[in-house]
Amino acid sequence: MDSLNNKILNKREHKKNLLIGISGSVATIKIAELVENLSKANLFDIRIVTTEKAMTFLDNHLQEKLSNVQIFTDKDEWGQWKKKGDPVLHIDLRKWADIFLIAPLSANTLSKIATGACDNLLTCVARAWDFDLKQDRTFDLADQKSLRLLKKPFIVAPAMNTFMYQHPITEKQINQLKEWNIIVLPTVEKILVCGDKGLGAMAEVLTICDSIKIIKQQLDQN
Amino acid sequence: MDSLNNKILNKREHKKNLLIGISGSVATIKIAELVENLSKANLFDIRIVTTEKAMTFLDNHLQEKLSNVQIFTDKDEWGQWKKKGDPVLHIDLRKWADIFLIAPLSANTLSKIATGACDNLLTCVARAWDFDLKQDRTFDLADQKSLRLLKKPFIVAPAMNTFMYQHPITEKQINQLKEWNIIVLPTVEKILVCGDKGLGAMAEVLTICDSIKIIKQQLDQN
Amino acid sequence: MDSLNNKILNKREHKKNLLIGISGSVATIKIAELVENLSKANLFDIRIVTTEKAMTFLDNHLQEKLSNVQIFTDKDEWGQWKKKGDPVLHIDLRKWADIFLIAPLSANTLSKIATGACDNLLTCVARAWDFDLKQDRTFDLADQKSLRLLKKPFIVAPAMNTFMYQHPITEKQINQLKEWNIIVLPTVEKILVCGDKGLGAMAEVLTICDSIKIIKQQLDQN
Ligand SMILES: Cc1cc2nc3c(=O)[nH]c(=O)nc-3n(C[C@H](O)[C@H](O)[C@H](O)COP(=O)(O)O)c2cc1C
Ligand SMILES: Cc1cc2nc3c(=O)[nH]c(=O)nc-3n(C[C@H](O)[C@H](O)[C@H](O)COP(=O)(O)O)c2cc1C
Ligand SMILES: Cc1cc2nc3c(=O)[nH]c(=O)nc-3n(C[C@H](O)[C@H](O)[C@H](O)COP(=O)(O)O)c2cc1C
Repeated sequence: MDSLNNKILNKREHKKNLLIGISGSVATIKIAELVENLSKANLFDIRIVTTEKAMTFLDNHLQEKLSNVQIFTDKDEWGQWKKKGDPVLHIDLRKWADIFLIAPLSANTLSKIATGACDNLLTCVARAWDFDLKQDRTFDLADQKSLRLLKKPFIVAPAMNTFMYQHPITEKQINQLKEWNIIVLPTVEKILVCGDKGLGAMAEVLTICDSIKIIKQQLDQN
Repeated sequence: MDSLNNKILNKREHKKNLLIGISGSVATIKIAELVENLSKANLFDIRIVTTEKAMTFLDNHLQEKLSNVQIFTDKDEWGQWKKKGDPVLHIDLRKWADIFLIAPLSANTLSKIATGACDNLLTCVARAWDFDLKQDRTFDLADQKSLRLLKKPFIVAPAMNTFMYQHPITEKQINQLKEWNIIVLPTVEKILVCGDKGLGAMAEVLTICDSIKIIKQQLDQN
Repeated sequence: MDSLNNKILNKREHKKNLLIGISGSVATIKIAELVENLSKANLFDIRIVTTEKAMTFLDNHLQEKLSNVQIFTDKDEWGQWKKKGDPVLHIDLRKWADIFLIAPLSANTLSKIATGACDNLLTCVARAWDFDLKQDRTFDLADQKSLRLLKKPFIVAPAMNTFMYQHPITEKQINQLKEWNIIVLPTVEKILVCGDKGLGAMAEVLTICDSIKIIKQQLDQN
């Protein structure tokens, strides 16, 4: 936690803290590409929070590529706390972050967020997020003025097999997230890793990165 | 997975693939009787998917009786996948199955399915099922025409202590499943294993088997 | 279970069985104070049920203070059952208890109860509770007549970081619990353990104990 606190103190002007949550979708294998793209611009300090299942998709090769990014898992949350006054990781991360991105967002983590479940570090951060709900409408990447109003942007990039995506609850829960001012990056149609075709694939890495940069620009002007 | 793929290729005419999900209810002890009844007719190729808690009810004696049926657990799902292109078990099982039966369906798994949670193999199959929702009404075993329209029948047999059954959320979530074209076999009133009397016990094994056979006949005519 | 059954037989007049559930909030550290207060009056037989995460807050010092209270965990639930006819712990506890108090109630366990999830001993007891819903209104501690009508009072004391508390789903799910006749003790505003200020802190231990005693008095008159 020391390094985390130092980070808060040393936060350079215009550089924003980006917390990336990753959940148990195959699209997790794109995380290195995503982090690399966002790191190049030197606009963000990046931290990662993963679910237990997401870790099963992070092989040694990927973990090596991410070696200079701090990765937090459930073990960091419940192992740490010993006595009253000790830091609470999901609260610290939630305060540290200027922007919260979950990419990929699995069907399961979507369901947890939509129903308020928070049985792991990632969903605890989401449950404690500042939704700034006095703003009474959903935010739209195409409408940059709406973004300027968001104090703490929360963006998700769902990623799932097209069969899971077509389940009627997907749309319902995505709409629930939008009502809470969460920005949802639309899935794209493609031949999925498993061979099936249809909507459900995660937005392109470039699309995600561009969205995050646009959002950051707006934050800079707040 | 090889044997699974061979099964798909060798699928004999009229024989249907039946995937049976079992969750953590005491009624799990009836699974051997159920499989035996459905196997006798030589109408089905049967595979089983269990939750972790369901396994605690499958003692050695029961597992022996099921020795010629392939049983899939969570370990088969997340252990297998190594790289892009590898098979994804819940998707493969979902494609393999012509009919999906969950018996017994526990209160907990009912809640997961109704809220879109999919943190284990069984609920991942359910989340990725083809609900064929262009059909705009619930299906009814008594109305055989309605069954003929179902491409991928999904049947559940809830089983719970009568106190759990009486909880107001039970009815609400069962209705949610029906809206998604899932066929719900009514529970029966009996003195439960724990000594309590009331609705909530799983439909009789014979009732379940007869329902599955009726559904198969309709599928054969599709 | 033997001691549990003896307890049922030996239940002294006017003494009520109080089951206290504790979930994974920092406020768990107040459980010893709560139990001590309620024990002094010699009005209650007390048993505790914890979630796995709650146990991480019960250090040796606290566990020592609770050494004369029986604490049940998930291991007691799924380890015990061997064959048809064996006792089912969550059902036995639910029958044993005259009053069910969850203090602290975490955001996560709130979500589970509101959505009918019951993947651990604590939420299984909640899922099997007798909500006595023929009574068609919510119960109010200030209106003692309303309490007299409750056969099996179920009281919760939510406790969470103020950020989690401010999430829009908190109010929605608390209202859902009230609809089911669960008595919800309001959170209080204070500087939380993590340094943040706002509503979300668990009601004072004294408030909780007084509420339980008032409820007991009403039960005595039933
Ligand atoms: C090989 C494999 C690939 C998967 N891909 C996805 C996916 O792309 N999207 C998804 O929602 N779930 C996917 N799943 C299912 C999730 O891993 C599962 O629902 C898990 O419980 C999610 O956990 P989490 O949300 O806690 O990370 C996949 C599972 C496996 C075994
Ligand atoms: C001995 C015993 C019997 C149980 N019987 C049932 C039951 O019949 N129905 C039910 O819904 N839950 C029952 N439960 C509770 C479930 O096992 C519990 O909710 C579990 O988390 C379900 O997990 P699953 O849905 O992932 O299989 C029982 C628990 C025990 C210990
Ligand atoms: C140090 C620490 C303190 C926490 N305090 C709370 C709290 O006061 N309220 C809450 O709802 N969650 C709190 N959490 C998060 C819960 O522990 C988490 O949601 C957990 O999954 C709850 O599990 P349970 O509901 O099964 O007990 C805390 C977590 C940590 C690590």
